[in-house]
Order: sequence, then structure tokens, then C-alpha cells
Amino acid sequence: MEVFIEPIGRLMNEFSKLPGVGQKTAQRYAYRVINMSESEARAFADAIVNVKRKVRFCKVCGNFTEAEVCNICATREKSVICVVKEPKDVIALEKVHEFKGVYHVLHGVIDPMNGVTPNDIRIKELLARVGEGDVKEVIMATNPDVEGEATAMYIARLLKPLGITVSRISRGVPVGSELEYADEVTLARALIERKEI
Amino acid sequence: MEVFIEPIGRLMNEFSKLPGVGQKTAQRYAYRVINMSESEARAFADAIVNVKRKVRFCKVCGNFTEAEVCNICATREKSVICVVKEPKDVIALEKVHEFKGVYHVLHGVIDPMNGVTPNDIRIKELLARVGEGDVKEVIMATNPDVEGEATAMYIARLLKPLGITVSRISRGVPVGSELEYADEVTLARALIERKEI
Repeated sequence: MEVFIEPIGRLMNEFSKLPGVGQKTAQRYAYRVINMSESEARAFADAIVNVKRKVRFCKVCGNFTEAEVCNICATREKSVICVVKEPKDVIALEKVHEFKGVYHVLHGVIDPMNGVTPNDIRIKELLARVGEGDVKEVIMATNPDVEGEATAMYIARLLKPLGITVSRISRGVPVGSELEYADEVTLARALIERKEI
Repeated sequence: MEVFIEPIGRLMNEFSKLPGVGQKTAQRYAYRVINMSESEARAFADAIVNVKRKVRFCKVCGNFTEAEVCNICATREKSVICVVKEPKDVIALEKVHEFKGVYHVLHGVIDPMNGVTPNDIRIKELLARVGEGDVKEVIMATNPDVEGEATAMYIARLLKPLGITVSRISRGVPVGSELEYADEVTLARALIERKEI
């Protein structure tokens, strides 16, 4: 980056820490900042510091929150818990406006190949919540990949003896897609999990 | 953005002011910041404020600089001036390590459709530099589009009477490309500007 003067090179270096941002994109972002007004740039910088200062994890579900307990845990029906890998999965599900219960964010999935064991994710916190009673169903909404499936099965085995319903989000061909473009595993799953109409 | 808590929504809003950044990308960037350490986030915010505080325009060529006169103007041979539209064009040319002269950044091109007249860009500053003497050649390196060509022609007409060489970067098929994929205008230009070998 020796063609850039120090303040620009330094800002580009910071931008390139963001996911998917290479040298070219970092340059475009840096130039946009240079063209901002002083107060715009200040607001941008403040928002970065502010997010680190204010955002923490809900002590109940592990989702992002500004308070001790998140809005969802504070206001919603607690008999159904939807278990997800990450906070961004909560956002994805909330956008659907379909689920009315509460969440449990694992902050990871079991992944022995990368050294992530059941103790590294928030499984015991989930067991504690379920142990407190009132929970009727736990929906496993981890990703439909190898680790997500394995984690769902692992947790299901722990919860079943407690006498609650454990369900898994359905897997199949995406709505609006064409069969032709579905991969074999998804298509096979769509056949196996077919429903009478 | 009502599914996001305020500090995250606010940071996403800031990120989405960057070129080409939509809601999804802004969310990914915001989550990356949340996962940064306190000091990393602080360094990021500082780099933004710092760039606004330290970067200004070289009073000679109009390129970005931290000092009053940029490094290029301060150290390089001044008999050849390369005229470009924007500071990022200087970066692009410097990466080639081919040009040893100095630059002149117009900060725009003549574009009557968008209300940009010759007075809105740094043309009189260029004339002043040339008027000081010592300049033997001015290379017009504005973009090979309608406005870039028109601006190059306009400036060339002003400079020619001063008795200096005015040249234009060559246009033709990009090196390493295939003729088949070159557009007609480029191909026509490559034929017209053919060189004896």
C-alpha cells in the first residue's frame, strides 16, 4: 500500500478486516469516507464504538441485547424455544413473522474437526432453561449442514428424556425454486419427507 | 431495520452509506465489528476520524496529501504533467511504475448534462502551472468515455497555443484480452490508431 498516504492506507487496512473486503473495495470505502463531511465521519466512528459499548448478550437466550434480558425474552410466550446457531439466525427467523416463541442462541455448533465440543456452546444453558419447566417444545433450527444436523440430534437426545417435544425445521426444495436445480441430497430429503396432500 | 436493536441498526445504517453496501452486507459488517475486541473497534473508529483530520488536497496538483504539497510534487520531475479526473486515477497510474512526472487532478470532468462546467474543475489551476514555464508536455489521462474525451479535447485546445506538447493516452484493445470480446467502438479505435511494427 506504499502508493497510499498513511491515513488512507491505515483506514484501508481497517476496512479490509471486514468480511469479503479486499484492497480495491477498501480503497473505495476509504475514498467515500474522505468525501464525507466531518460530522458524517464522526457519526460513523461513533456508531462503531457505540456498538461495542452497548451490545451484549441476553443472559437468558444469548441473543444480542442492550439490556440484561432481550426484548424477545422479556415479552414473548416461553413454552416454545427455537434453538439457533448464531444471533443472525434470530434476525432471519424474526423477519418471517411466523414464530411467536423465544430463542436460544448456541453461539456455535458441535464441530469436532475444529475442536468445538458440546461444552463450548450454550447447551447446558438450554438444559437449565428447559429444566425450569413450562417449556413444551424445542425447535432445532440449526443449519441443515453436517454440523447443524449433528448438533440438533445431540441436543434432541438430551431433551427427549425430559418429556418435551423436540422438532426439527423441515428440509426440502426451496419454495419458488426449480427441481432441476436442486442438489441430489436436498431432492432425496424432499422425497423422504413428503407429505400427503 | 426494526428487528435490529438500536446500536446495531445505527451501525448498519452507517455502513450502508458506503458504495455498493446494501442491508445484508451492512449486517455482516456490523456483526464483524461486534466480534472485534474493544481496542480493534477503537482503532477502526480512530482511522475514520483520522483520515478526515489529516487528508487534504495538494495545493499544486490537487491529489491527496498530509502536507501542503504532496510527495510526488515535492520530489519528481516537473516537465511532464499527467492530467487525471480523480485522486484514485493517480493511484492506478502510480501502480504501473511507468510515469516519472507529476500529476494534475481535475476533481471532475466537464459534464454539461450534470451541470459541470469548465469552471467547476481545476482547469485554471492547470493553466497557471503551465504558465509558470518549464512544462514541456501535458498528458491527458481522463477516462476514455464521452466526458473524459470532451474534457481532454477542451483542455488540449487551451494548451496548444502555449506551444507545449499535448498528448492523450492511447485507446485500444486491452492487453491480454481477446478480440472477440472487445466492443465495436474499442475495436474501431484500435484499427484507426494502429501502429507500424
